[in-house]
Amino acid sequence: MINYSQNIKQQIHTQTQQNIIEEDICFDRYGDLTLTQQQQQNTNRNWIKVCHIDQSTVGNNILLRARIHNSRIQGKIAFLILRENWYTIQAVSIKGDSASSQMLKFIGGIPLESIVDVEAVVAEPNFQIKYCTQKVELQIKTIRVISRSASKLPIQIEDASKKIVDFNQNLEYQYQNNQLSLNQRLNNRVLDLRTPAKQAIFRVSSGISLFFRQFLIEQGFIEIHTPKLQGYTTQNDNIKNFKLKYFNQDAILSQSSYLYKQMSLMGDFDRVFEISPVFQAIHGNTNRELCEYTCMDLEMVIKEHYTELLDLTEELALFILKEIEKRFQQESKIISQQFQFEPITISQPIIRLTFLEGLKLLQQSDIIKHPITYMTISELKQLGKLIKEKFGTDFFIMHRFPREYEPIYVMPCKDNPEFSLSYVLFLRGEAIASGNQKIHHPELLSQQIQKVGIDFEQKRGYINSFNYGAFPHGGCAFGLEKLLYLYFDLKNIRNSSLFPRDSSRLFP
Amino acid sequence: MINYSQNIKQQIHTQTQQNIIEEDICFDRYGDLTLTQQQQQNTNRNWIKVCHIDQSTVGNNILLRARIHNSRIQGKIAFLILRENWYTIQAVSIKGDSASSQMLKFIGGIPLESIVDVEAVVAEPNFQIKYCTQKVELQIKTIRVISRSASKLPIQIEDASKKIVDFNQNLEYQYQNNQLSLNQRLNNRVLDLRTPAKQAIFRVSSGISLFFRQFLIEQGFIEIHTPKLQGYTTQNDNIKNFKLKYFNQDAILSQSSYLYKQMSLMGDFDRVFEISPVFQAIHGNTNRELCEYTCMDLEMVIKEHYTELLDLTEELALFILKEIEKRFQQESKIISQQFQFEPITISQPIIRLTFLEGLKLLQQSDIIKHPITYMTISELKQLGKLIKEKFGTDFFIMHRFPREYEPIYVMPCKDNPEFSLSYVLFLRGEAIASGNQKIHHPELLSQQIQKVGIDFEQKRGYINSFNYGAFPHGGCAFGLEKLLYLYFDLKNIRNSSLFPRDSSRLFP
Repeated sequence: MINYSQNIKQQIHTQTQQNIIEEDICFDRYGDLTLTQQQQQNTNRNWIKVCHIDQSTVGNNILLRARIHNSRIQGKIAFLILRENWYTIQAVSIKGDSASSQMLKFIGGIPLESIVDVEAVVAEPNFQIKYCTQKVELQIKTIRVISRSASKLPIQIEDASKKIVDFNQNLEYQYQNNQLSLNQRLNNRVLDLRTPAKQAIFRVSSGISLFFRQFLIEQGFIEIHTPKLQGYTTQNDNIKNFKLKYFNQDAILSQSSYLYKQMSLMGDFDRVFEISPVFQAIHGNTNRELCEYTCMDLEMVIKEHYTELLDLTEELALFILKEIEKRFQQESKIISQQFQFEPITISQPIIRLTFLEGLKLLQQSDIIKHPITYMTISELKQLGKLIKEKFGTDFFIMHRFPREYEPIYVMPCKDNPEFSLSYVLFLRGEAIASGNQKIHHPELLSQQIQKVGIDFEQKRGYINSFNYGAFPHGGCAFGLEKLLYLYFDLKNIRNSSLFPRDSSRLFP
Repeated sequence: MINYSQNIKQQIHTQTQQNIIEEDICFDRYGDLTLTQQQQQNTNRNWIKVCHIDQSTVGNNILLRARIHNSRIQGKIAFLILRENWYTIQAVSIKGDSASSQMLKFIGGIPLESIVDVEAVVAEPNFQIKYCTQKVELQIKTIRVISRSASKLPIQIEDASKKIVDFNQNLEYQYQNNQLSLNQRLNNRVLDLRTPAKQAIFRVSSGISLFFRQFLIEQGFIEIHTPKLQGYTTQNDNIKNFKLKYFNQDAILSQSSYLYKQMSLMGDFDRVFEISPVFQAIHGNTNRELCEYTCMDLEMVIKEHYTELLDLTEELALFILKEIEKRFQQESKIISQQFQFEPITISQPIIRLTFLEGLKLLQQSDIIKHPITYMTISELKQLGKLIKEKFGTDFFIMHRFPREYEPIYVMPCKDNPEFSLSYVLFLRGEAIASGNQKIHHPELLSQQIQKVGIDFEQKRGYINSFNYGAFPHGGCAFGLEKLLYLYFDLKNIRNSSLFPRDSSRLFP
């Protein structure tokens, strides 16, 4: 470290400091590193992460790179709070042998959020440090600015980190205590992401896709990649499609990869999964929907009965939920400090009820009074509450939905063709995944299509996939952002998307 | 098993067989299972996979579901070849107690590629079986058709499996021996995927993304998902963009997620990666390019020098290449039977040469005679050959490319700003990955932009990301299909994409 300092001591000062070099005993201990200085050969110095600086490192000389989270000069002492991810540590510089008044002034003038390299000694603090994650203190030996932030930030990290006490769906709404609106956060997403809860949320997000893959690979699935650019024919003329010109053809962006997953199965890949973006042109801005989200899909052959699929999906969901609980305890705590969620509870055995049984529960509670074949989102939410009260669980499965509200490709129930082999997994009364057995029989599929009055010729391409020997099969799709948003009760799904897209937001 | 058979013996015959039931002693041993019959409750019977039927199972009663790969009746014996994935096994039915003449006729009449459930006894064959992967024989007890294929297939699996002996870039070209053209295969992709080489290729593909993630997660990276729908401004007006209307705004499909990865880093996620589709509107159909492909990206902060990034990328690439070699020996063998590739060799230490050193090699070999600052694809291929001859390696790294051909955001070299901190990983003389350190300094970025004459205001949004304290950083992107195509020398990148997209292909 000493060598490095000496090598560059002639270079480290920016022009504004040239005039004070003669009288400053600490001239080689601080400054802005220019870009050229930053591109030294690799010096193989040891860098420590803030999270690793603790009691066990007291007395050590350390080197770290972090942001200036906060700073103040109090008499002869500069107090800094340095931040790396969500970890913070206090660093001090005391006027005397190790810091000149010029150095203190320099430190006090570094804008918040700037990135600095600090050489320091780890020490026990004189007073207990409450407002940092790390409980030891750094005595600064050298401090060099790697990247200076603009002095005025569009939003303050501290404001963006505040506890959300009055959640409102209106994106422009400012909470009490001058909290930021969701739009202010999203317009300045790079700063908003630096807050502890967001740091934690996207670490859990990474974990969820890992758990999804891990479970399925152990179950003999392979990962595939299906095209998001799909041929546009009147057969997929759907108001929710994003359309575009593909050279001289018309194309849409995939809303779901089920067709290509089905075709992969017919191509003899028995069990496949995919994690990929899907797109839906949803007007209006609800708190539950995005125009682009991450779909975690699986599709598998079925030997005898669709419970093979349903059982596997249930196990998969429980595996993911339990792994989050087990491996992300610290992240959960941090998220709860901003979002104040109730931890989910899952009672055994897993509640698995049919649509008719769900309906009966709602009717017994006088929530639904007339005969229906459909439940609204609010009725489903109320069903979730009823089940929570009755069985003490936030997670349940409803299956055998009425045919008339399911897509035509869903297999009817053997014992009652008014219902279909379809199911939904619920968490806190909202869907985190839905699945079904699909029709693999080309003639039955044709009949369905004719029954609902769609032109048969339009669907020929789809039906043809099943003409050359077709396996009974089914699949299921999870929404990654939805799962994350419901697990931590984040109030708005935008909080679980890194750079969310809705009908008015395409930037950043 | 017996119970199941008895339960359904009144149901299993299609109407055409009704008239022969009386005189057929085997009437309950064969037939077409209707959809309703297939939806029995789960009987918890044991299913065996073809790959698991071997010497150790001789004498066992087994149950399997497979395709009819081939069939013939020879005298009193029906010979079937059953296929599951790329595994094949011979099954026989001999006229006598266990098969009536009607049953033999039924078996002989099942179209190829149909899916059947077979109950059988595993036996040692009388003669050695050469043309199947499994060396034991099945004596059929019952056979039921789950899904009957159309009797005429648009392409034959056997033709699609033939060794490719005369590869031609023309998609319509038919090889000698009446081999199929690439377009014929791709038009019937579901059938083409059933061939052994394709079964193997996409299993390796699944492995590659697994290895990529495994390595990076161990190195402290997290997986993120960035938007593929991006705001369109004149700053990203690129001929290769697919454009679309996003409600009342203009959008493009992401060609690369580097900007969002950079923003995630500025949002304090130090190390991120993503595996996702990216899109490029490339006219013309080369054998190396796709309009939609799977990009495996990483982006990380750099402490001191871009070799931190380069070293990590090199290790990652070697990890992936070695894991393929180690874990996919059987798949490699199967692919080589159709594509006849030379296994890759990697010599140690890894060859890492600068662009200028590469140029010198080409000049010494009289391949390039005049001064240049650019290498064509064919010159790069020749460089790959030279390096293979000289150092015996198919894998090498070239770095420090001339600035003028690199994007403006790439960091210039400290010692010579004519060159940039950029690199490319080559396999068999073609790029499998490229990376660079990016400019994190907003003023330098502005200077670059002004130097090349782009309107400064257009780029303000991009530059702003680095205004609030920016980490030195860089990243790298691998093309999944490219890596797969080069590793196995598949001659055309379409062979490594499940449902490839080029300027004329949007179906299937």
